[in-house]
Amino acid sequence: MTLLAAGVTKRSKRSYMNSDTTIAILGGTGPQGQGLALRFAIAGVSVALGSRDGDRAAAIAEELNKKLNGRSEAHIHGCDNLGAVDAAEQFVLVAVPYAGHDATLAAIKSRLSGKVLVDLVVPLAAANPRAVAMPKEGSATEAAQALLGSEMKVVGALHNVSAHTLNALDEKINCDILACGDDLEATDAAVDLIKRLGVEAYNCGPAVNARCIEAITPILIRLNMSKKVPFSHAGIRIWRPGHSGV
Amino acid sequence: MTLLAAGVTKRSKRSYMNSDTTIAILGGTGPQGQGLALRFAIAGVSVALGSRDGDRAAAIAEELNKKLNGRSEAHIHGCDNLGAVDAAEQFVLVAVPYAGHDATLAAIKSRLSGKVLVDLVVPLAAANPRAVAMPKEGSATEAAQALLGSEMKVVGALHNVSAHTLNALDEKINCDILACGDDLEATDAAVDLIKRLGVEAYNCGPAVNARCIEAITPILIRLNMSKKVPFSHAGIRIWRPGHSGV
Repeated sequence: MTLLAAGVTKRSKRSYMNSDTTIAILGGTGPQGQGLALRFAIAGVSVALGSRDGDRAAAIAEELNKKLNGRSEAHIHGCDNLGAVDAAEQFVLVAVPYAGHDATLAAIKSRLSGKVLVDLVVPLAAANPRAVAMPKEGSATEAAQALLGSEMKVVGALHNVSAHTLNALDEKINCDILACGDDLEATDAAVDLIKRLGVEAYNCGPAVNARCIEAITPILIRLNMSKKVPFSHAGIRIWRPGHSGV
Repeated sequence: MTLLAAGVTKRSKRSYMNSDTTIAILGGTGPQGQGLALRFAIAGVSVALGSRDGDRAAAIAEELNKKLNGRSEAHIHGCDNLGAVDAAEQFVLVAVPYAGHDATLAAIKSRLSGKVLVDLVVPLAAANPRAVAMPKEGSATEAAQALLGSEMKVVGALHNVSAHTLNALDEKINCDILACGDDLEATDAAVDLIKRLGVEAYNCGPAVNARCIEAITPILIRLNMSKKVPFSHAGIRIWRPGHSGV
């Protein structure tokens, strides 16, 4: 136990020495959460990987740290969702399946004060990932804001980048990230965090725009599944006139 | 009158010799309609440019034909909206401002039988082009389908390409076009028509997806207006992993 405690302390010190912040990724044991944790760790951001099952999160975090294999001194630490929220300095990313969205938020609500909730959840239709079934609030981002209350800072982002892309560590993520939220500063801060992944990210305005941004994902899934297009794992890019590119 | 009639006949013959089809563009005297007419003519598609004011459409069509300046043997012909619908072999594109959307469709409804209506209209909020004000049906495309009846073939497309880009004839349009509609064949046919512009176009599924696709435009307008991004006239692209590009 002493050795283990010493190990943890040493690791924590190391991650604080080489990373300037720690973020939480809830639902972090899924493919999207794992890929994001790896990408953020490589970018020098320490990650508290949260799950309902803290032991599972800890085991997966250790696997991810092995995968990093010296690419990063920032550390991925696995724990339960509440522990991850408490470990987050500012940003709490939620990457749970839509079915667990509201329950996850309700469980952490009391611990979110002063933090920024970044909602990655897409309300895919239960039986059809090529369609959305938006909640009555209009989008998952707006539902999160309603559930957590207007004083809470909620940002929607990272909906349109596939788990495959996130986990393909040898490739640059060169699709774009569209973010939105009613708190301008919090949305800008989330955009800056996301840009650390080496990706272009844009503040796309208020939370109502999540009705569009979240709904891009099932369109991408539809194209990925289509036999008419020669690709899968598609993303979205903002195109600028005068630039070429695929 | 005899000379004029002879001129019209000669022109019509010429366009039919070198173009395999004629499409209508209603609201064609606006910047978007004009740019599209030029692009389609260059692609060998003859255009009946429709407007409520047929004389104005005829005058603008002549200007556009001069602009083409030998780039195309396909002809742009200006007339009133009903005349344009009648001239269209299959496709009737509607590029009117949102305020004129329903009235334009109601006025041509009886003449649309057997044709495909391609709706380009984005329901921008009256006082804020950075926001949508969707009709109760959910999108302009769905409103058009409801107004015209379920037997009519309605496709939503070409919402996210700027008039500036369309009119910059020396530059390739290399943003992508997202199309949707409840009639699979009609949507595929519209995609094929649009691909003649040398642009990538995708069938993105049923008309309900227009709620997303139409709403991309005000997000692009927001970015274009933002001082934080170094571009304007942005479009959207589907990004494929393994490809780079801006």
